[in-house]
Amino acid sequence: MRPERLKSLLARFQRGELSIQAVLDQLAQAPYEDLGFARVDHHRAVRQGYPEVVYCPGKTAEQVAAICARLAAAGDGLLATRADEEIRRRLEAEHPGIEINDLARTAYLPPSEPIEIAVRGSVLVVTAGTSDLPVAEEAAVAARAMGNPVRRLDDVGVAGIHRLLAERGELAEAAVIIVVAGMEAALGSVVGGLVSVPVVAVPTSVGYGASFAGLAALLGLLNSCAPGVTVVNIDNGYGAAAAATRINRLT
Amino acid sequence: MRPERLKSLLARFQRGELSIQAVLDQLAQAPYEDLGFARVDHHRAVRQGYPEVVYCPGKTAEQVAAICARLAAAGDGLLATRADEEIRRRLEAEHPGIEINDLARTAYLPPSEPIEIAVRGSVLVVTAGTSDLPVAEEAAVAARAMGNPVRRLDDVGVAGIHRLLAERGELAEAAVIIVVAGMEAALGSVVGGLVSVPVVAVPTSVGYGASFAGLAALLGLLNSCAPGVTVVNIDNGYGAAAAATRINRLT
Amino acid sequence: MRPERLKSLLARFQRGELSIQAVLDQLAQAPYEDLGFARVDHHRAVRQGYPEVVYCPGKTAEQVAAICARLAAAGDGLLATRADEEIRRRLEAEHPGIEINDLARTAYLPPSEPIEIAVRGSVLVVTAGTSDLPVAEEAAVAARAMGNPVRRLDDVGVAGIHRLLAERGELAEAAVIIVVAGMEAALGSVVGGLVSVPVVAVPTSVGYGASFAGLAALLGLLNSCAPGVTVVNIDNGYGAAAAATRINRLT
Amino acid sequence: MRPERLKSLLARFQRGELSIQAVLDQLAQAPYEDLGFARVDHHRAVRQGYPEVVYCPGKTAEQVAAICARLAAAGDGLLATRADEEIRRRLEAEHPGIEINDLARTAYLPPSEPIEIAVRGSVLVVTAGTSDLPVAEEAAVAARAMGNPVRRLDDVGVAGIHRLLAERGELAEAAVIIVVAGMEAALGSVVGGLVSVPVVAVPTSVGYGASFAGLAALLGLLNSCAPGVTVVNIDNGYGAAAAATRINRLT
Amino acid sequence: MRPERLKSLLARFQRGELSIQAVLDQLAQAPYEDLGFARVDHHRAVRQGYPEVVYCPGKTAEQVAAICARLAAAGDGLLATRADEEIRRRLEAEHPGIEINDLARTAYLPPSEPIEIAVRGSVLVVTAGTSDLPVAEEAAVAARAMGNPVRRLDDVGVAGIHRLLAERGELAEAAVIIVVAGMEAALGSVVGGLVSVPVVAVPTSVGYGASFAGLAALLGLLNSCAPGVTVVNIDNGYGAAAAATRINRLT
Amino acid sequence: MRPERLKSLLARFQRGELSIQAVLDQLAQAPYEDLGFARVDHHRAVRQGYPEVVYCPGKTAEQVAAICARLAAAGDGLLATRADEEIRRRLEAEHPGIEINDLARTAYLPPSEPIEIAVRGSVLVVTAGTSDLPVAEEAAVAARAMGNPVRRLDDVGVAGIHRLLAERGELAEAAVIIVVAGMEAALGSVVGGLVSVPVVAVPTSVGYGASFAGLAALLGLLNSCAPGVTVVNIDNGYGAAAAATRINRLT
Amino acid sequence: MRPERLKSLLARFQRGELSIQAVLDQLAQAPYEDLGFARVDHHRAVRQGYPEVVYCPGKTAEQVAAICARLAAAGDGLLATRADEEIRRRLEAEHPGIEINDLARTAYLPPSEPIEIAVRGSVLVVTAGTSDLPVAEEAAVAARAMGNPVRRLDDVGVAGIHRLLAERGELAEAAVIIVVAGMEAALGSVVGGLVSVPVVAVPTSVGYGASFAGLAALLGLLNSCAPGVTVVNIDNGYGAAAAATRINRLT
Amino acid sequence: MRPERLKSLLARFQRGELSIQAVLDQLAQAPYEDLGFARVDHHRAVRQGYPEVVYCPGKTAEQVAAICARLAAAGDGLLATRADEEIRRRLEAEHPGIEINDLARTAYLPPSEPIEIAVRGSVLVVTAGTSDLPVAEEAAVAARAMGNPVRRLDDVGVAGIHRLLAERGELAEAAVIIVVAGMEAALGSVVGGLVSVPVVAVPTSVGYGASFAGLAALLGLLNSCAPGVTVVNIDNGYGAAAAATRINRLT
Repeated sequence: MRPERLKSLLARFQRGELSIQAVLDQLAQAPYEDLGFARVDHHRAVRQGYPEVVYCPGKTAEQVAAICARLAAAGDGLLATRADEEIRRRLEAEHPGIEINDLARTAYLPPSEPIEIAVRGSVLVVTAGTSDLPVAEEAAVAARAMGNPVRRLDDVGVAGIHRLLAERGELAEAAVIIVVAGMEAALGSVVGGLVSVPVVAVPTSVGYGASFAGLAALLGLLNSCAPGVTVVNIDNGYGAAAAATRINRLT
Repeated sequence: MRPERLKSLLARFQRGELSIQAVLDQLAQAPYEDLGFARVDHHRAVRQGYPEVVYCPGKTAEQVAAICARLAAAGDGLLATRADEEIRRRLEAEHPGIEINDLARTAYLPPSEPIEIAVRGSVLVVTAGTSDLPVAEEAAVAARAMGNPVRRLDDVGVAGIHRLLAERGELAEAAVIIVVAGMEAALGSVVGGLVSVPVVAVPTSVGYGASFAGLAALLGLLNSCAPGVTVVNIDNGYGAAAAATRINRLT
Repeated sequence: MRPERLKSLLARFQRGELSIQAVLDQLAQAPYEDLGFARVDHHRAVRQGYPEVVYCPGKTAEQVAAICARLAAAGDGLLATRADEEIRRRLEAEHPGIEINDLARTAYLPPSEPIEIAVRGSVLVVTAGTSDLPVAEEAAVAARAMGNPVRRLDDVGVAGIHRLLAERGELAEAAVIIVVAGMEAALGSVVGGLVSVPVVAVPTSVGYGASFAGLAALLGLLNSCAPGVTVVNIDNGYGAAAAATRINRLT
Repeated sequence: MRPERLKSLLARFQRGELSIQAVLDQLAQAPYEDLGFARVDHHRAVRQGYPEVVYCPGKTAEQVAAICARLAAAGDGLLATRADEEIRRRLEAEHPGIEINDLARTAYLPPSEPIEIAVRGSVLVVTAGTSDLPVAEEAAVAARAMGNPVRRLDDVGVAGIHRLLAERGELAEAAVIIVVAGMEAALGSVVGGLVSVPVVAVPTSVGYGASFAGLAALLGLLNSCAPGVTVVNIDNGYGAAAAATRINRLT
Repeated sequence: MRPERLKSLLARFQRGELSIQAVLDQLAQAPYEDLGFARVDHHRAVRQGYPEVVYCPGKTAEQVAAICARLAAAGDGLLATRADEEIRRRLEAEHPGIEINDLARTAYLPPSEPIEIAVRGSVLVVTAGTSDLPVAEEAAVAARAMGNPVRRLDDVGVAGIHRLLAERGELAEAAVIIVVAGMEAALGSVVGGLVSVPVVAVPTSVGYGASFAGLAALLGLLNSCAPGVTVVNIDNGYGAAAAATRINRLT
Repeated sequence: MRPERLKSLLARFQRGELSIQAVLDQLAQAPYEDLGFARVDHHRAVRQGYPEVVYCPGKTAEQVAAICARLAAAGDGLLATRADEEIRRRLEAEHPGIEINDLARTAYLPPSEPIEIAVRGSVLVVTAGTSDLPVAEEAAVAARAMGNPVRRLDDVGVAGIHRLLAERGELAEAAVIIVVAGMEAALGSVVGGLVSVPVVAVPTSVGYGASFAGLAALLGLLNSCAPGVTVVNIDNGYGAAAAATRINRLT
Repeated sequence: MRPERLKSLLARFQRGELSIQAVLDQLAQAPYEDLGFARVDHHRAVRQGYPEVVYCPGKTAEQVAAICARLAAAGDGLLATRADEEIRRRLEAEHPGIEINDLARTAYLPPSEPIEIAVRGSVLVVTAGTSDLPVAEEAAVAARAMGNPVRRLDDVGVAGIHRLLAERGELAEAAVIIVVAGMEAALGSVVGGLVSVPVVAVPTSVGYGASFAGLAALLGLLNSCAPGVTVVNIDNGYGAAAAATRINRLT
Repeated sequence: MRPERLKSLLARFQRGELSIQAVLDQLAQAPYEDLGFARVDHHRAVRQGYPEVVYCPGKTAEQVAAICARLAAAGDGLLATRADEEIRRRLEAEHPGIEINDLARTAYLPPSEPIEIAVRGSVLVVTAGTSDLPVAEEAAVAARAMGNPVRRLDDVGVAGIHRLLAERGELAEAAVIIVVAGMEAALGSVVGGLVSVPVVAVPTSVGYGASFAGLAALLGLLNSCAPGVTVVNIDNGYGAAAAATRINRLT
């Protein structure tokens, strides 16, 4: 099944011409392309509304390159995350037009045909400190790849709370806020108390010894006294972007 | 400042006649009623759009009763969570019309003037097993108190995946899904893979010894292979409802 | 050695007539009263400047009563902490004038001769929520017993940061601030960022499952992004008071 | 005692001519070959029915080479696991016919005389994602070395459950299933619920920060809601193969 | 669908007259009986070959009684585990013929029509000490309910290894061995080294402080130096029985 | 085999008339008395030189009583540890001459024929505080039951180091020192630095929240900067006594 | 706002001519200089009384250099902590007069106009062993940069307590003591018991395996039996210096 | 004070001509040689009976070399542990006669005048597997440096228990046994059950993922079902040797 066919299915589903069951039945006929070591999922765009994401750790550079080659050939676009230096340079060489972000460790190739998704508004990525930037960049790159307008607010940790309070206007305009914070991650609670829109918090592994590689920030955010702050995995900027996308899209 | 005044503020803010800054400035003039041991927040409804929530553990029955009396007197409504037997019976006796849920350990008194909130759709609360019901009930009670239509899907854990697959229609119709699951909480990943709407997962402390009081479920959900599943604290049904409310409301 | 002798030693030491070595040498001659199961330390007042503190858990009611009887007989005064109902009632019956605090679980008998200590200013005990009150009470009772003026600021958690910002004047006037907070304990960071006086933080065991009995608050405070916030043990109000006393006294 | 003698013992034991006690008595006379730093166990084949396994970490390349030389000289065959690049290259150079698997980090030298073991059926190794492949390869190499037919099913994680459901036929035909999964390892529960044959699960250390090097997957699998799923150590593909072999062999 | 129908399906499947897909399709038509709070699974016997198991913690006595009443009415039989005193007494009163085991905390009602399952041999349940008996009893009761002949070997911990070595004959005759051990659970490794049949190990929460409620035994068994020992959850005798049943049945 | 026979064996072994192998062979013929749920070990006295110890948790009062009855009948003597109120009262009623220690939770019945063991000197049990007494008592009772002269030094924690330094003479005279300490257990390091005899340290679960039930003391003692301090399990006074006995006996 | 202006504000505030509110209002007008990835805080000196501190981990060398360049240009001075070799060499090259400390991994550039702060006395940095020196150096460098006289007492761990007792005079003269200790960190308790001045303890990650990267020392210090010892994060010498500065300054 | 003087003191103390107090008083006059960063303890030999031990991690090569130079110059001898390649080569070059052990990572320079210590017998170092050898070597080197005869028994892990049982004679002859074991460390319990002499156990960090760097072995040994097994820190061969020395020496 070619991607065009898949997109057509998607469109008909969105117009209500196909039930979700009918779409799933179609998918059941040809669910993936089997490379032996991986099942390349050309249907992700159908099911999730954005390009396949290739999580690189634990894969050899050859495996990543092979998967990306198939996705690119089908015009699906792709987002490689946690790509190390070697992989980033290789994808850069093999795919003209791919967007490499060294800080975020991502490589993003847009689909040949842009995916248009109706959204509620912008996703605001907020960081506590400069050391949280790599995770925030990953979140921002991924959120853009998934069709969200993205804005940024950096280095507004609560140790100097005037920096954050001065930006209440920014906070008020976002449809979804991603808070990226390490150490004790108190920023999540303060932001959660200032706004009533959804807040997705990403604990980072930034901190002295007893941060225990992000455990302190993770527990801090899970125990936020601001009700309704939700949490994703440590340093998982991509996961936060995926959550924000689920929230932000208008079906 | 009387609650009517607050609600008027809220209404004007929602109609765009007041900026958020203006509302905050008003609030700054009289932020709470000080009972000595607690600052009763009559503005919660303004800031968050739902009645004040009283978390009971660590408070004496007298303290809870005093806080609730003030909130009720002001017509604000209230939701008491984790209320033990003694507190539930006392609130039941003191507040005609209060809704007691023994399984959820909640007491809910609607505000004298119903809060109308425009929402995207219904919140679906899904449980893996019967032992997860107390947490799911707390989530459902709280979500209703915050103005969401709520539906339920119980006992669909993945050990018998046909039970879940038979309900794909239900899953497809929700605006937000709250997954409540203990043990390994695999249900979160499977649901997250089946739908593209927001999924808020609540790990529960249900399980044999190595669940370590919910740690297994918590880590399981944080590491979900389905991208964009977000997590709240262990057994925190209320927190999940608050997150779903942030997501579900329009404006 | 009788307590009068000890107090005389203390006075001479404070006036500079005795070196610390000379005092220690005196103490070495008769360091304690041996009850068999405990060495009652009549010199605590000499060394630390406040009455002996009896930590009750793990001791039988009989043991506590015997220790307290010896201290009271010597006119030293005493502070019993974590005293359960049975112990509190027993001490109340046996020692007229003892001050029982059921919320703090303390019993305080002032020394027959008041200890006068010169201090820098007042100790401000700040709590995030009403559920943190038992620990805050223990801190306040202990700080007063050690000769500090004590003020309170309760229920100012950061989920509604306007409650805290409205009290910046209170914060500014304290010589030492004790922050008592559970859940994620973000209050410690925000207060630490607002003031430049010493901040001693006490994590509490208040919270949902993943607070893991105060671990979340403990790690949060140890990782505070506000530099120079120091931490004591979970729920250890007494320890915070002792630290504040070390800081607050002039000599 | 020469290996031929041992194999003869084994054969007589399998034909019921010798009791297990008699075999053990024989072994007690010459249990191992002592290299000073290691006791090379030529009887493993007798006791366990497959070649000695050399676990390389913590051993120097010289030690591994010496142990393997003795085993090879005796014709026993050997399986080296977790062999780093240096060791793999060295064994490759010293032992013609040895099978090196760089992904699995194994080196396998078949015994001079093939071991024939009667088995119930095939061992199916299932992986959740491509990043789990190194562990799955180790399991597959080891299972083959121990005499099991091995089949594979890769990249069928539950985030896209249609990939797994499409392979129910494969699952149904296996005698034993080894599930290799990282992150939350939900695959173990879903497979466990779909089949009634034995399922041995291997958690892997694949995942973002809060996988805590495989702890999340380990706890997830131990808490599987599918009854009767058993678990081996994190990343321990070899252990899973050994367990599957115990299950799969007839007598 | 009546149970007779289900058993007929099962029989046809076992004779090869129906494919697994055909059975699943049948099940999809009527997968469970919905009690509102639980989906009573009359098909467990079809899918797993033994009666439904009701895990009692987190369920009210009323819920357990209602579920058991439905299962009993259908003639399916049932096994209730972790049933507290109140539940055991109630089930005893309501179901003549139910077998109550106070040590194991189980209640077992055989199905109206006995399930005959062909097995490889007997399941041997081995305990390290008398304190491990409750878990071992649960394993034994459950294994018998699932159709296995069960034998026992108690109090053979390795501190006196002669007690275990004297029973090598017993070990040698089992088809599957369940090792139940607390503290450091060294028994699992020693048994695993003495036999080549499958060993399923259950860590128990027996031990002094640093057993950390079974964590020590769990880690000990996961790290067993005897290859191929598999592990289930702490104190989970039922899980071990389910694993042993998967291994022991023929077909 | 009757106990007299065992003691005769022991005597001959101690006189060098029997090799250890000969004794073990004798034991192998009749290693225990089987009560069904327990194997009563009448040979403990032979192998370890002191009466059988019955660890009560997890055993019913009936089981403990039955085991003790057999040991008493054989004249072996017994030591029951962690015996709760019910068990202590029952053993007291059934065995005249048994020594009950409520603080230590022990019951000790001396063997009918006293065991004479040659020792190096006395065992000194040192505690940091009064709350550590129950564990210290268990250690002292057990050490005496195993034939050691025992001395005590209580309440000498390092917060007032003069209390300890004043007792250097006591420390210097001991053959083995058992240090019992909770909280941070610094006493172990200081004592270890003051003496060169063996120091066995017992961490206790005494302390505020972040003692995590003795984990802090356990880690503290394992990391002692005084070389050669060894550690037993948390609150395991009996284990420390057993270790001290191994060290203290001659031959 | 230029730094001169800020210092003038500070001076007026210290002379009582400006309220803290007035200073904060001024700051609110221009709180930072925005570099895009960081908000350079020229007001730290105003709020905290010492130069901005740049925590280097997680920042690229370029980012650190840019931030430092801005701070230096404004004459504010700066302290870079945890600066790796590359950063230290770069800052050394770019800023004449900067003080590099390779052991402490710091770079300190004094402000163009020295900050004069009235203090109570000297800060004494005490270490348990030579391996704790890097953390102690960081503490000492930072404390000096913040205006404190600093003295040192190294290698006085409690395994040889005479080394510490010989220095009681040194301890007695300090206004604040920073104890830097790894392993079990017993030094904190002993020092805390010897003095009545404030003790800030820094656990270090020095130690064998079960120090778990400083966890043992952290828990040890949190559980100190000497009342009023406070704790900062593992290896956080800078944090201890900041705490000591809060305590030591006379305002 | 020169070492000769110290040794004379030691001799007089051992002959009973000097009290321990007198020796301590002498030491108080000149307790160490101060190098600025370290206090070189020439009295260790007096207090502990063996040369000073230099723990290298966290010290620079220069610091180690300087400390060793002072010790060597005084003829005290020294033992450097955890010395990395650079340090070992440097000490080898600087000190003729120093004994370098690359596997143990030690450097041992005997004192100029041999220390004669009367001991009870030999120290037997037992290992479970070849991967435990580095730790066992450290233990053996240190035990010899401290004056103990040392024997070895390697690779006798319990997975093949006949290897251990065949060596019961070896076990029976030791005065003290050091068990070095990783993974689950079951060897400690089995050895502890076979002998009645003191057993000091060293957990090692050898193992698959869930050994968690030795935590599994540590917990396993602390929970040993063989009474009286004591434990030192993970991988701490030196600590085990120090404990064995305390036990083994006479007087």
